[in-house]
Amino acid sequence: MTAGMQGTTTAVRGPMIWFRGDPFLTSREDAFVHEPDGLLICEDGKITAVGDHTALRARIPDGVTPVHYPGHVISAGFIDTHIHYVQTGIIAAFGSQLIDWLNHYTFVEEQRFSDGAYATKVASAFCDELLRNGTTTALTFCAVYPQSVDALFEEASRRNLRIAAGKVLMDRNAPDALLDTAQSGYDDSKALIGRWHGKGRNLYAITPRFAPTSTPDQLEAAGALWREHPETLMHTHVSENTGEISWVRSLFPDRSGYLDVYDHFGLLGRGSVLAHGVHLTGRERARCAETGTAVSHCPTSNLFLGSGLFHVHDAKDPRRPMHVGLGTDIGAGTSFSMLATMNEAYKVAELTNYPLDSIKAFYLATRGSAQAMGLADTVGSLDPGHEADFVVLDPRATPLLAQRTSRVEDIEELLFVLAVMGDDRAVRATYIAGALAHDRDAPLDRGTPTATAAV
Amino acid sequence: MTAGMQGTTTAVRGPMIWFRGDPFLTSREDAFVHEPDGLLICEDGKITAVGDHTALRARIPDGVTPVHYPGHVISAGFIDTHIHYVQTGIIAAFGSQLIDWLNHYTFVEEQRFSDGAYATKVASAFCDELLRNGTTTALTFCAVYPQSVDALFEEASRRNLRIAAGKVLMDRNAPDALLDTAQSGYDDSKALIGRWHGKGRNLYAITPRFAPTSTPDQLEAAGALWREHPETLMHTHVSENTGEISWVRSLFPDRSGYLDVYDHFGLLGRGSVLAHGVHLTGRERARCAETGTAVSHCPTSNLFLGSGLFHVHDAKDPRRPMHVGLGTDIGAGTSFSMLATMNEAYKVAELTNYPLDSIKAFYLATRGSAQAMGLADTVGSLDPGHEADFVVLDPRATPLLAQRTSRVEDIEELLFVLAVMGDDRAVRATYIAGALAHDRDAPLDRGTPTATAAV
Repeated sequence: MTAGMQGTTTAVRGPMIWFRGDPFLTSREDAFVHEPDGLLICEDGKITAVGDHTALRARIPDGVTPVHYPGHVISAGFIDTHIHYVQTGIIAAFGSQLIDWLNHYTFVEEQRFSDGAYATKVASAFCDELLRNGTTTALTFCAVYPQSVDALFEEASRRNLRIAAGKVLMDRNAPDALLDTAQSGYDDSKALIGRWHGKGRNLYAITPRFAPTSTPDQLEAAGALWREHPETLMHTHVSENTGEISWVRSLFPDRSGYLDVYDHFGLLGRGSVLAHGVHLTGRERARCAETGTAVSHCPTSNLFLGSGLFHVHDAKDPRRPMHVGLGTDIGAGTSFSMLATMNEAYKVAELTNYPLDSIKAFYLATRGSAQAMGLADTVGSLDPGHEADFVVLDPRATPLLAQRTSRVEDIEELLFVLAVMGDDRAVRATYIAGALAHDRDAPLDRGTPTATAAV
Repeated sequence: MTAGMQGTTTAVRGPMIWFRGDPFLTSREDAFVHEPDGLLICEDGKITAVGDHTALRARIPDGVTPVHYPGHVISAGFIDTHIHYVQTGIIAAFGSQLIDWLNHYTFVEEQRFSDGAYATKVASAFCDELLRNGTTTALTFCAVYPQSVDALFEEASRRNLRIAAGKVLMDRNAPDALLDTAQSGYDDSKALIGRWHGKGRNLYAITPRFAPTSTPDQLEAAGALWREHPETLMHTHVSENTGEISWVRSLFPDRSGYLDVYDHFGLLGRGSVLAHGVHLTGRERARCAETGTAVSHCPTSNLFLGSGLFHVHDAKDPRRPMHVGLGTDIGAGTSFSMLATMNEAYKVAELTNYPLDSIKAFYLATRGSAQAMGLADTVGSLDPGHEADFVVLDPRATPLLAQRTSRVEDIEELLFVLAVMGDDRAVRATYIAGALAHDRDAPLDRGTPTATAAV
């Protein structure tokens, strides 16, 4: 049962879409569900019934009046499989590719998160921004400091968000103030797992930043910790930038490549999410598929840092399909909006000569991302049994959207237009565990922030 | 004197930025002006004074109270050097590269513009969308039908926008309903020039769609018409897509390349704007520079159609710099916002390993685009003598923008953040010829539309 939602029953009515399977691998009919006039019933934070309104309305519990969203689109909440909450303040930092960008902006900003009050302030704004964008689950980096993790989980808990997060492990090639050690990183992470994993909806992710900033000892310790806590996630970066790949080769000359570093230390497997993977080789993709390792595709970031073009159709090659989710990668990404992220994923795919249709794009942003995080039975779908996180999209959010969507011919075109032209304004409402958590037109009062947030 | 603005005097105060030169070619100090507390005085539709508020306030005419925009950024209005107003209805059409996209979507939609009432309806929405996005001048394609041009110029005139537009010339390789002939295209264009060019702020652009859809006879006639009316603009497409380039080679085997087709028929020169130019060769770029021919860089479109990556630093190579403007290329482009267009221009430049700074990006969107259209003395700058078209940008337009811009260190960073994170919401107000034409927070009543708009 979802924490804090016992006894609550809600229902919503309107056009609905969701996924039962993977449209990259099965027919659209098997993968995708569209209810033009759907009814969704949620009890105790979970979805208990979904289907055609007329067929299902007899099951509406006494005293419950469905909230009706005619002309909208109700989807499972978006899932952002790669984001750095501690980089919210440095979105749109000019001019560099990956390594320079880390040194000039990221490593400066992240030092501010030793201050728990600052961390709380940013975490609060971050969680609100997720809700404004219809993102109901995120897998996020924190800073190296355990208090940066506490701050995030506290703010996520206040909103009942399903967040996976972890303290960064980093014991070399970064400013001293940001370094831990193999031992302290292990100890701090283990303590945080005890404090947060499975508490409410919080999930812990063991989070080595990337191979260049961890010694072999630290990667070894991360692998050991994951073996001790296989229910947690693993979250790191791989093969984002060609300069980065060369650096990894020079740091780990005994390994056959970048992915093999993580493989060697036991960091691949179900629940392991590697951000980017822009330059993964065919053999590396096959190894990911074999181990259940997922990649988070972060198109706005890959364009912003000039990292390169991710080939989604290679990653989803039916002969050896990888789990792929979408990520904003804030702060190298340029928008919290998963709609904007789908827009850029489409553009990146076009440049690789692959037309990424809206069914596949929405899959990546919902069930595909849930699958990448090993949460396909938990979130990312409107099927009964899933947690009742969903988003209500407004096809008439702006004058231009209203004009364009007035002439769409089918749900696929409507979803495509929303992905290409939509932003946070297209998110009419966000529901968390069956409860309204963001209303675009009637902002909710969250009450007073926690004591530490008073900065 | 700008039509309809006689006797009007207005003044605005606030942070201001504008350009006196080209930051790709001269020092930033010579090219860029920033007044942290500026005053702008406009009389009879033109800018008559600009500078520091304290130094200049004695010149405020009696009875005029400057509108104060503290904490905003006042810039010359944005100039969109390539857009198709008749494609407003088909933004976000899925799945094709250029030629298929034309056949499946564009050529279907453009046939609707034989109906003057439909044309008026779209033209009205189009002009409003320009104003919402701070775009005060646009160079736009119409459809093949003269009434589609009349409708646009009528709606532009109602708003006093400085628009350059023309009927498409197309006498082959398109549906019959969209074809003219070399003679009728010439005659219709000539009549439209007489009816509209220089009337109020309207400018005519002779508009062959692109080499594949015009016979040599039609291109010959277009060149003859331009020689008869050298005060008009020339507007077409070039080298957007590799398949298109091959097609042109097969259609014009006697020409040395795509650009040479236009060169041969006298379509290059000052006031000629070629959209895209993604794949222009070094020799072709040199020929553009030599003739004063401009290219309109349309990054959201180039990404959306997978056309390729424009190399802005090659185009602006100081040894042979071309005139380059920015274009949205609606409907293949994905946003009317020139801020969103700068965002994507930055990303395209990053992929070509060139960091396009915000000073250069804002130059491209204002004075650079004016220069591309041969209008550098008319619009695109706040220097006295220019027409008083300007935009007021709001760095706190959204919660995330407000948070991010609260910590910028200088005007360059502020402009960069606006370009990367801004959209139509960041346009607080748009002024046309010194008069408020769009107010985000207090929408203006435009009165009843013209009779033909009642559809």
